[in-house]
Amino acid sequence: MKSKGLIQIYTGNGKGKTTAAVGLAIRARGHGLRVCYIYFHKDPEKWGYSEHAILKKVGVDVFGFARKHPCCDKKTNIEQIHRDCLKGLDYIKEMYRQKQYDLLILDEINISLRDGFLKTEEVVSLLKARPVGLEVVLTGRGAPRKLIKLADLVSRIQKIKHPYDKGVKRKEGIEF
Amino acid sequence: MKSKGLIQIYTGNGKGKTTAAVGLAIRARGHGLRVCYIYFHKDPEKWGYSEHAILKKVGVDVFGFARKHPCCDKKTNIEQIHRDCLKGLDYIKEMYRQKQYDLLILDEINISLRDGFLKTEEVVSLLKARPVGLEVVLTGRGAPRKLIKLADLVSRIQKIKHPYDKGVKRKEGIEF
Repeated sequence: MKSKGLIQIYTGNGKGKTTAAVGLAIRARGHGLRVCYIYFHKDPEKWGYSEHAILKKVGVDVFGFARKHPCCDKKTNIEQIHRDCLKGLDYIKEMYRQKQYDLLILDEINISLRDGFLKTEEVVSLLKARPVGLEVVLTGRGAPRKLIKLADLVSRIQKIKHPYDKGVKRKEGIEF
Repeated sequence: MKSKGLIQIYTGNGKGKTTAAVGLAIRARGHGLRVCYIYFHKDPEKWGYSEHAILKKVGVDVFGFARKHPCCDKKTNIEQIHRDCLKGLDYIKEMYRQKQYDLLILDEINISLRDGFLKTEEVVSLLKARPVGLEVVLTGRGAPRKLIKLADLVSRIQKIKHPYDKGVKRKEGIEF
């Protein structure tokens, strides 16, 4: 009998949250597990996010919701972001019913919560409704306390040093 | 003109160090960068480490040195581990001369330092001798202070919760 999949959270102000989730996706694919990778508040048209192409290449299903964020797009309508996030949750609920995955990654969903685009209860109920055997990974700064309480594994990635602090610019292929 | 590549360290007692490095390798490959992934103190014959297969599949060169560690193999000769680690460093120095990479990952090399298989000075001089444009990522618990001082980016991954603490066993495809 399959056991309940774990909930993992990668949060904190240091570099390594999204890359850890990407690494988990790769490890899972190495074992032939079925992986779905959903990102929030990232705009591949703007930044590229070249990891998505490789994830798709190795058989990970990749989807994006609520790609804009007010910090990068001043013209963004906050109500629209909220609706787009909810579309993401609806998609996941449909996926629960229709398609079987072993690992679901929700990249930057903590940001949706931190910035009020989603309510903690909405994500908590989504997690609780997950099918047996589905492991879920959530990334992003500012994971709320209720989510941390619910999770089985929580890693806080703390910035000890970051080159941005010295004015070093984002580097293609390393930062995005 | 190419600038000096950064040195990144992922350390701490939380889950996410190796997976972050794997994610960085994937992102870099997505940009067509040339990546070399070298792991220490991991025995794929024993644990599998399925991420290595996918890394190779997407064009990352993967090598392992000093695959045994006394904590897992009681019969291991510590002197042998020390020599095997040095072989790894020699290999990298040769690689500096012969083959061009954009990103070099040294997975768990901090463990070699923490457990006295390598001296900090040996790794520091290896890092300082890196060719222009080569970014180096080091992972593993217990990164020594001198290495942190040298690095440009340091993330400490702190365990807030881990299912091992509750007696949950290592899961294939998720933990290794």
